[in-house]
Amino acid sequence: MEMVKNSAGRMVPVEVNGEKHTPFMGVGKYKPTGAKAKPPIRTCADYPEDGNKIKANLREALESAGLKDGMTISTHHHLRNGDVLTNYLFDVIHEMGVKGIRWFPSASFPCHEHLIQYLDDGTIHHIEGSMNGPLGRYTTEGKMSGLGILRSHGGRYQSVQDGEVHIDIAVIAAPTADTFGNATGDRGPTACGLLGFALADSEYADRVIVVTDNLVPFPCIPWQIQGNNVDYVVEIDSLGDPSKIVSGTTQVTKSPDRLLIAEYVADFIEAAGIMKDGFSLQAGAGGTNLAFALFLKEKMKKAGVKARFMRGGSTQYLVQMLEEGLTEYILDGQTFDLEGVRSMRENANHVNTSPFTSYNYHGKGNFASMIDAVVLGATEVDVNFNANVVTHSDGYLLHGIGGWQNCLFSKCTILAIPSFRDRIPVIVDEVTTITGPGELVDVIITERGIAINPKRTDLLEAVKDSDLPIKTIEEIRDEVHSICGKPELPVVDKSKPVAVIKWVDGTIIDTVFKVVK
Amino acid sequence: MEMVKNSAGRMVPVEVNGEKHTPFMGVGKYKPTGAKAKPPIRTCADYPEDGNKIKANLREALESAGLKDGMTISTHHHLRNGDVLTNYLFDVIHEMGVKGIRWFPSASFPCHEHLIQYLDDGTIHHIEGSMNGPLGRYTTEGKMSGLGILRSHGGRYQSVQDGEVHIDIAVIAAPTADTFGNATGDRGPTACGLLGFALADSEYADRVIVVTDNLVPFPCIPWQIQGNNVDYVVEIDSLGDPSKIVSGTTQVTKSPDRLLIAEYVADFIEAAGIMKDGFSLQAGAGGTNLAFALFLKEKMKKAGVKARFMRGGSTQYLVQMLEEGLTEYILDGQTFDLEGVRSMRENANHVNTSPFTSYNYHGKGNFASMIDAVVLGATEVDVNFNANVVTHSDGYLLHGIGGWQNCLFSKCTILAIPSFRDRIPVIVDEVTTITGPGELVDVIITERGIAINPKRTDLLEAVKDSDLPIKTIEEIRDEVHSICGKPELPVVDKSKPVAVIKWVDGTIIDTVFKVVK
Repeated sequence: MEMVKNSAGRMVPVEVNGEKHTPFMGVGKYKPTGAKAKPPIRTCADYPEDGNKIKANLREALESAGLKDGMTISTHHHLRNGDVLTNYLFDVIHEMGVKGIRWFPSASFPCHEHLIQYLDDGTIHHIEGSMNGPLGRYTTEGKMSGLGILRSHGGRYQSVQDGEVHIDIAVIAAPTADTFGNATGDRGPTACGLLGFALADSEYADRVIVVTDNLVPFPCIPWQIQGNNVDYVVEIDSLGDPSKIVSGTTQVTKSPDRLLIAEYVADFIEAAGIMKDGFSLQAGAGGTNLAFALFLKEKMKKAGVKARFMRGGSTQYLVQMLEEGLTEYILDGQTFDLEGVRSMRENANHVNTSPFTSYNYHGKGNFASMIDAVVLGATEVDVNFNANVVTHSDGYLLHGIGGWQNCLFSKCTILAIPSFRDRIPVIVDEVTTITGPGELVDVIITERGIAINPKRTDLLEAVKDSDLPIKTIEEIRDEVHSICGKPELPVVDKSKPVAVIKWVDGTIIDTVFKVVK
Repeated sequence: MEMVKNSAGRMVPVEVNGEKHTPFMGVGKYKPTGAKAKPPIRTCADYPEDGNKIKANLREALESAGLKDGMTISTHHHLRNGDVLTNYLFDVIHEMGVKGIRWFPSASFPCHEHLIQYLDDGTIHHIEGSMNGPLGRYTTEGKMSGLGILRSHGGRYQSVQDGEVHIDIAVIAAPTADTFGNATGDRGPTACGLLGFALADSEYADRVIVVTDNLVPFPCIPWQIQGNNVDYVVEIDSLGDPSKIVSGTTQVTKSPDRLLIAEYVADFIEAAGIMKDGFSLQAGAGGTNLAFALFLKEKMKKAGVKARFMRGGSTQYLVQMLEEGLTEYILDGQTFDLEGVRSMRENANHVNTSPFTSYNYHGKGNFASMIDAVVLGATEVDVNFNANVVTHSDGYLLHGIGGWQNCLFSKCTILAIPSFRDRIPVIVDEVTTITGPGELVDVIITERGIAINPKRTDLLEAVKDSDLPIKTIEEIRDEVHSICGKPELPVVDKSKPVAVIKWVDGTIIDTVFKVVK
């Protein structure tokens, strides 16, 4: 396989699964040409006048959609680890004897371990999408027939919009839908919040199948997915296990180290002058981030500061801030707990967004670059501020990118991370896999101190008189090494790429190789 | 100019303004092939990171958008007869010395008479869009350089989606917007309700300019137009005259004949069994329709019947039905009075729709065919149930199509019309211009009686025991002729087409010719 060194200094293939790809050229350097994908023109003359697109079962819908060998099938991770539909879908595809599917999920979860049998027997040729847990391990062990391709949420939209990935059939799990195909995720027995990750698929796929366990009379309001883009609707008993779709029990960290990190993050945002009237912020849903949200909330109350908007994934803590008037809006991309789902349903200032509005890099701007600060995690960060979210230091691909790459474009990108985990350094000389280029990472906040990217002289200046523990990244690395020793490098076979990591513009930023031991 | 006879028996050109078009082939007969239009791929790298797309003025925005001779510029009729932006826009284009513009409005109004000077001097080559009043008269007198093309709201979306009309620059009047280009029509000093007619333009135009007189901090919520599709934002003092944008004074008819028609319509809907729990209905905003809504409301209350949804254009009467629980939802395409605008802003069950969801015939179905009954008007209807909404019996093109053609697909299409106007018969032997084929028109309701299309034996059967004044269409025609005499035919020059009428599928259903006297 021909490999070239990209502008991040990483060896990447120029061809993946028989298709040409462009190596990463630097942030903002690759300029796309040409036109967006162009789905076929349909006509109402070919669809039922009464709007009823019901098919008796999934097999019948797939047959009507013309399923055949080698097609690309997309699914979405709105049901998270409670998803039973995707496993059932591939049971049906296997039963139909169809082979060589490119599976294009927006993400996969441990519950999809069920599909390893279909990777083994050739039903699925390869996966393009985040592979959390077992499927990532399977891939890293070199067992998948094709190469995996990982994209951010924005990159997934971009790839579909740009025609890089042509979806033959999209299968959309809909917690509520009508027979015309209008669908929403904010209500029904398996309510998950938003269906935004299926937006591109509904717009660009040749055929779109909506599967629901809660059929309502037309019109299904709100319609997060528009029935005008849908070909068939299938009713099944249950889409999944609600307790695993939204946990409802997301907990604030109890670890003293993580609490300290969370406090530092809140202190930094205040000291750097970011926390002021009308500001905006995005933070994820991990235990550290939840703790940070609580610290920040107290500071905002004390200072009498009100945000213009907060970006979700929403949680009960964000909802509290909205309901207490600490932010005017939540702009929500996905919903992490039941309070988030309730708020989205009830509060007009809790606003649905999509990978198109928030993250698509091949648009006329997107929301991500307008956020004052974003707080993210990472599996590794190196002394050049390059960061990794997909592999561990042992080389195993165990996580997806999510919106992480897209969020790096915020005005202040903060990685809130422990300096080591299980005695393995998180601050390293060089990350195993570059998922985000260091030039976009502004601040690293660990329990051992805060490192500001030297490029951000404005931030260094802003906090120079604070009592925050500002250090260089090298200082933090040295401390970590003195505790844990230098980390062992993974043993990989550099002649055997197993997956590639896309940058937000569709270029390849790094490669994941087969782990040898 | 080469003309052929289409399947409606009308002579239509095969080429219009140098572009090939397909003659009407019958309802549901033309099957499109190929793919949708494909706008250019953009990149965030070329747009401001802080999301601020403001240009100092409209001229600067047009220059940045690359305005040049012969381009297609689109505007929208959300500001109706209160629009000052469009006139100002063409003042600027004229000042820039640009010529030969194809103007592609969603509709034009009498206030746009100002633009006749630019049609005269070659700034505007021709208009594709509804021409209400003076511009229609100008066109019918053969004064426009090119041929006019009239499309329904759905046909306009279809023509853009299918790539039949490529918009170079869309100029969208936005009663409220942010600097990123998110825009809404439901608030601000020139609030108009919805901006749905600009949806296709925002999605498919090469460049999109949002012009607002009410700039708010990001995010503008709701965003009826998505800033991710917008290139430039321009702030001006005022978009127009609010008193002419939404009247706020739409009045129920006081004419005894019209009141009788309205009562017959309500009686018919009840007698035919259409008015039952969960039914759906669409009616326009004219004085007769408003009266009909009041009659129907009383019937529904008396019978204890609740609709699933009503389709707007919304008015205070529809809003009352929503607020009194007589309908679960209003699905709104445009807003005709201030009560409608308020309800849209405040009531989550007053739902925004668009020409894409409601009317686009080249989609996977649309809402129009799912409506139980629609009540419409017409300028003429003939004994074959063919109807005309664009020309008068004197041949003058004075009205647009609006959503009229699209609505004909409802399960029961009712034309509620006086049998004559100003002593000119409305029921005629053959309509001047076919806008809708008779096979889709089910019922004609006049003050002299109700004619049911003989094809609808089910409806004839349903009302046969009622005391409704059911007649044949010929009987009504004969009565009218006995009162008014046979109408004079317009004197037109059949060698001089001045405009063509598109059917919902993009084919040409009829031609308007130059009126000679």
